[in-house]
Amino acid sequence: SDTVPLRRGLPIPQGISKPTFLSAVAELKESLGAEQVILNDKEVQNGWYMEHPNTHDMMPLLSAEEFIASAVVYPGSVADVQTIVQWANKHLIPISPISLGRNLGYGGSAPRVRGAVTIDLGKRMNRILDINPDDYTCLVEPGVTFYALHEEIQRRGLGDKMWIDVPDLGGGSVLGNTLDRGVGYTPYGDHWAVHSGLEVVLPGPEARVLRTGMGALPGENTWQSFPYGFGPFSDGIFSQSNFGVVTKMGMTLMPNPGGYESFMYVFPNEDSLAQIMDIVRPLRIQNILENVAQLRHCLQTLAVRGQPRTKYWDGEGQMPESVVHEHLKNTPVGDFTWAYYGTSYGPEFVRKHKLEIIDREFKRVPGARRIDPSTLPADEYFWSRDRIASGTPDLVELAWVNWMPNGSHIAFSPIAPIRGTDATKLWDLAKKSHKEAGIDLMPAFCVGLREMHLIVEIVFDNTDEGMRRRAEKCLRDMIDDAAKLGYGEYRTHLALMDQVAGTYNWNDNALMKFNNDLKDALDPNGILAPGRCGIWPKRYRNRDWEL
Amino acid sequence: SDTVPLRRGLPIPQGISKPTFLSAVAELKESLGAEQVILNDKEVQNGWYMEHPNTHDMMPLLSAEEFIASAVVYPGSVADVQTIVQWANKHLIPISPISLGRNLGYGGSAPRVRGAVTIDLGKRMNRILDINPDDYTCLVEPGVTFYALHEEIQRRGLGDKMWIDVPDLGGGSVLGNTLDRGVGYTPYGDHWAVHSGLEVVLPGPEARVLRTGMGALPGENTWQSFPYGFGPFSDGIFSQSNFGVVTKMGMTLMPNPGGYESFMYVFPNEDSLAQIMDIVRPLRIQNILENVAQLRHCLQTLAVRGQPRTKYWDGEGQMPESVVHEHLKNTPVGDFTWAYYGTSYGPEFVRKHKLEIIDREFKRVPGARRIDPSTLPADEYFWSRDRIASGTPDLVELAWVNWMPNGSHIAFSPIAPIRGTDATKLWDLAKKSHKEAGIDLMPAFCVGLREMHLIVEIVFDNTDEGMRRRAEKCLRDMIDDAAKLGYGEYRTHLALMDQVAGTYNWNDNALMKFNNDLKDALDPNGILAPGRCGIWPKRYRNRDWEL
Ligand SMILES: Cc1cc2nc3c(=O)[nH]c(=O)nc-3n(C[C@H](O)[C@H](O)[C@H](O)COP(=O)(O)OP(=O)(O)OC[C@H]3O[C@@H](n4cnc5c(N)ncnc54)[C@H](O)[C@@H]3O)c2cc1C
Ligand SMILES: Cc1cc2nc3c(=O)[nH]c(=O)nc-3n(C[C@H](O)[C@H](O)[C@H](O)COP(=O)(O)OP(=O)(O)OC[C@H]3O[C@@H](n4cnc5c(N)ncnc54)[C@H](O)[C@@H]3O)c2cc1C
Repeated sequence: SDTVPLRRGLPIPQGISKPTFLSAVAELKESLGAEQVILNDKEVQNGWYMEHPNTHDMMPLLSAEEFIASAVVYPGSVADVQTIVQWANKHLIPISPISLGRNLGYGGSAPRVRGAVTIDLGKRMNRILDINPDDYTCLVEPGVTFYALHEEIQRRGLGDKMWIDVPDLGGGSVLGNTLDRGVGYTPYGDHWAVHSGLEVVLPGPEARVLRTGMGALPGENTWQSFPYGFGPFSDGIFSQSNFGVVTKMGMTLMPNPGGYESFMYVFPNEDSLAQIMDIVRPLRIQNILENVAQLRHCLQTLAVRGQPRTKYWDGEGQMPESVVHEHLKNTPVGDFTWAYYGTSYGPEFVRKHKLEIIDREFKRVPGARRIDPSTLPADEYFWSRDRIASGTPDLVELAWVNWMPNGSHIAFSPIAPIRGTDATKLWDLAKKSHKEAGIDLMPAFCVGLREMHLIVEIVFDNTDEGMRRRAEKCLRDMIDDAAKLGYGEYRTHLALMDQVAGTYNWNDNALMKFNNDLKDALDPNGILAPGRCGIWPKRYRNRDWEL
Repeated sequence: SDTVPLRRGLPIPQGISKPTFLSAVAELKESLGAEQVILNDKEVQNGWYMEHPNTHDMMPLLSAEEFIASAVVYPGSVADVQTIVQWANKHLIPISPISLGRNLGYGGSAPRVRGAVTIDLGKRMNRILDINPDDYTCLVEPGVTFYALHEEIQRRGLGDKMWIDVPDLGGGSVLGNTLDRGVGYTPYGDHWAVHSGLEVVLPGPEARVLRTGMGALPGENTWQSFPYGFGPFSDGIFSQSNFGVVTKMGMTLMPNPGGYESFMYVFPNEDSLAQIMDIVRPLRIQNILENVAQLRHCLQTLAVRGQPRTKYWDGEGQMPESVVHEHLKNTPVGDFTWAYYGTSYGPEFVRKHKLEIIDREFKRVPGARRIDPSTLPADEYFWSRDRIASGTPDLVELAWVNWMPNGSHIAFSPIAPIRGTDATKLWDLAKKSHKEAGIDLMPAFCVGLREMHLIVEIVFDNTDEGMRRRAEKCLRDMIDDAAKLGYGEYRTHLALMDQVAGTYNWNDNALMKFNNDLKDALDPNGILAPGRCGIWPKRYRNRDWEL
């Protein structure tokens, strides 16, 4: 089941004949070297996280042949990227950049349109161009993973001085994750907010190279320390978009806060959710709770132990709550419904002050228990959160994908105020759709500064067509139901981008009209990542590409 | 000298005849009411800060008739703004929006092209639409000043709970200052970074209204708590630009940190500058120094006492240093060359910890003295900084404009790393140009997080043509000299925008070409604020509009 034959043959982009496409590919091989352009004409491998495919979505919600590349190209330089963009403009062939392509849950490495040529930037453009120990900044190429950056900082003996911020999985690209506005768990967790400076190849026929912020000043020396520069601040339009191929990104690094300490509270009652969130909000905004912490449902905590669901239960439909609670009883943490994982930073006496406030507040929740970390074995999930909250890349989070055989997953990630009433509404909505679909619900509320991302991961067996359909319906229902209540997704899977973009439709779709205007101006031939985030170039618009 | 006759007559926009212009104005009066459209056909008044003109730059570096409006229009609603934009498109008349027009030092309320119609948004659109005490956010219209927002928070009894962040002068617009990427002095000092959500009238003929971020989701409830939304994050391109008229802005508010304490250190030797900056950098990045603090030169400290320079000295050219030092001796702080004004936040025991580190570090500088605030009288400038650093609007900073008769000023504001070598280079460069121009040098280094803004304010007598020419030369020299060393301005005066934009010319002006592409796409008729930040619409480009 790990190998997918190409039943539909070589995925040629729509509107171009096979011979024309092949001769264009030959031309590209001529420019970049034959070994840098690989046709996707054999069967594809789904692989796994560390050896993921760059040809398609290895966790397909639709058919694996839907979001699939016709070829993959490996640029080795900015000039190579320009060559590829010029080539795509000449032949009107869609291209789709990835940095590492580990965007699992949101489409992996797949292009949105079948047959696009994937630009795998990460394979060869993977240098750490600078780590500045005075300014606490770095400059990276697309292929630099959180692991690689972390290791290099240790190698240079700077590990005691500065931290990186990491998302739950460390194998992603610092640049790619940030462009998708990903989130990590130290006080520098809002990656977009702490980046500084981009270099971008624009998608027009000239493939001009732009540097944003202070990078536009030759000989500049604040490209990574001052994000804005002079005039319009354009970085934002290159995030979650298809307006440019980013070839370099500056990132700020967090100074070692002088100590840290992770903590965990568990709460027995499902209906304490609202109270917990109302406690969290003011503490978070006041920075007593200092990181993007997670309030997790117990089912996810069970799943992240890495055992298949069949170990606990082998019935159809949702696993009964009683089963979850029974099995939790035998874990080091014991039974609960919600777990809050947080970390306090700074010298001991400052942490003590904050932790006392936190303890007093959380203990107001009936049955709240503080878990003493010293009682937890080294392989307990808590320690993964502890590593991540202190900037050490990790992979433990992958474990819950084992919940299902041929485990795939896809995320529903709406934004809401940090309020009990909102948490309850989202929780009810997700419960209802999951119940209808017969799918286990494993949500985590990730608390930003003034909002929370609810992350609901649906784990499904990607060989089970029926389950895929139920998962898709469940997701589409939740998106619509959430939009009716005023909640929108912060990020989404390729298959759901049109739907999600459609919910941001205030004033007769003013935002999409605006995005379309920018797209047409910057990418007149419509070659770059058509359909990403629901933005279709003129050539594709209103021609039934939307899903 | 406070009244300027219009020697060149009614400033009609170039390329339109007087009768055609007057009939267009009559049409606009018809739509909005005659009293909302005022022709600028009489003499103009320079006024002063609190009663500033909205027709021109009240602190003119060039002739007062250069950057001057033909008329001023007062919209009362978003629909009125749309009407104005549609009207401008129909008649190809340039329009130039201001919120309050107190952008002194950078052009005040003036349009960049003579004869543009100024949209004075602040006069009628000045409502505080929301203050959310749970999320610590607000939503404001263009006319809301820092004073007004502060007062409203007090009036609602929320003053103890939340702070606003204020720039040195409180009479500006929260929205206008933020759009120009202005800076204040609490930990929320980077106004652009802490805003959340814009509503924008686009400059195209349809004058579509756009809401950014979560505002694009109807019924949204996180517009002010989550800045990004879904898809390209477009807010940035509306800052320091001419791509839209902003009609609403969300802003986050700072929770009361539970205490604060301002401090001041003075240093006797000019050449301690480098050492001070190298001490400041790590402390600032580690957030031991928590606000955008100012390192001020003693001459500015003398000038801010509000006395004219002639009180101290009546010679020509630069005032000798010895005179400055002599007069400082008789002030409560005593003599020094550099003064650092900072503020520590949080409960007392946390402040104590930070203040001890700061004291130890600053005391390494030869001759450093900590000034005991309790020795300073209530009208001492220190207390103005203390108010500002704790979010209380103030006006004391205006006092140094009195340094010259008919005092006007204009700023040179380059960005540099927080490094001794960079501070020294900028200081030397400014000294050289000021000496040549015979102008007193009064700089302040404003330390951001990973960079410093050097703010050099040139105070000049605006009736003294020779001094104006010298001031302009001094500024232009500094901009060029700084660019050669890799420093660029973060913001600039109307008269200098082309020059400054020209220094951001990496890769054959890639940034300006990109800005031009966006301008042409969004404002095809080129009606909105032509020339702002060096961006000229197609109709104006390469036609000698640049200065
Ligand atoms: C178990 C699990 C836990 C996860 N936890 C988190 C988490 O905590 N936080 C989080 O943010 N995510 C999380 N994710 C989602 C995802 O794994 C990460 O965000 C991951 O870092 C994204 O993949 P990547 O870094 O390889 O980026 P890529 O896949 O390379 O990039 C992401 C997207 O950005 C665009 N892009 C990338 N590079 C460029 C470029 N150079 N130019 C233009 N466009 C480009 C492309 O559209 C691409 O699809 C999780 C996923 C799983 C499976
Ligand atoms: C003594 C002194 C000290 C100062 N200290 C500081 C300081 O500490 N920090 C600081 O940031 N500044 C400072 N300034 C500069 C200036 O006074 C402030 O930035 C002031 O807030 C800007 O004027 P305003 O708020 O009235 O904005 P406006 O003048 O209304 O707006 C500024 C510009 O933004 C654009 N704009 C405004 N509104 C809109 C809109 N709705 N749509 C589209 N474009 C718009 C226009 O181009 C306008 O010219 C200082 C000035 C002086 C004289």
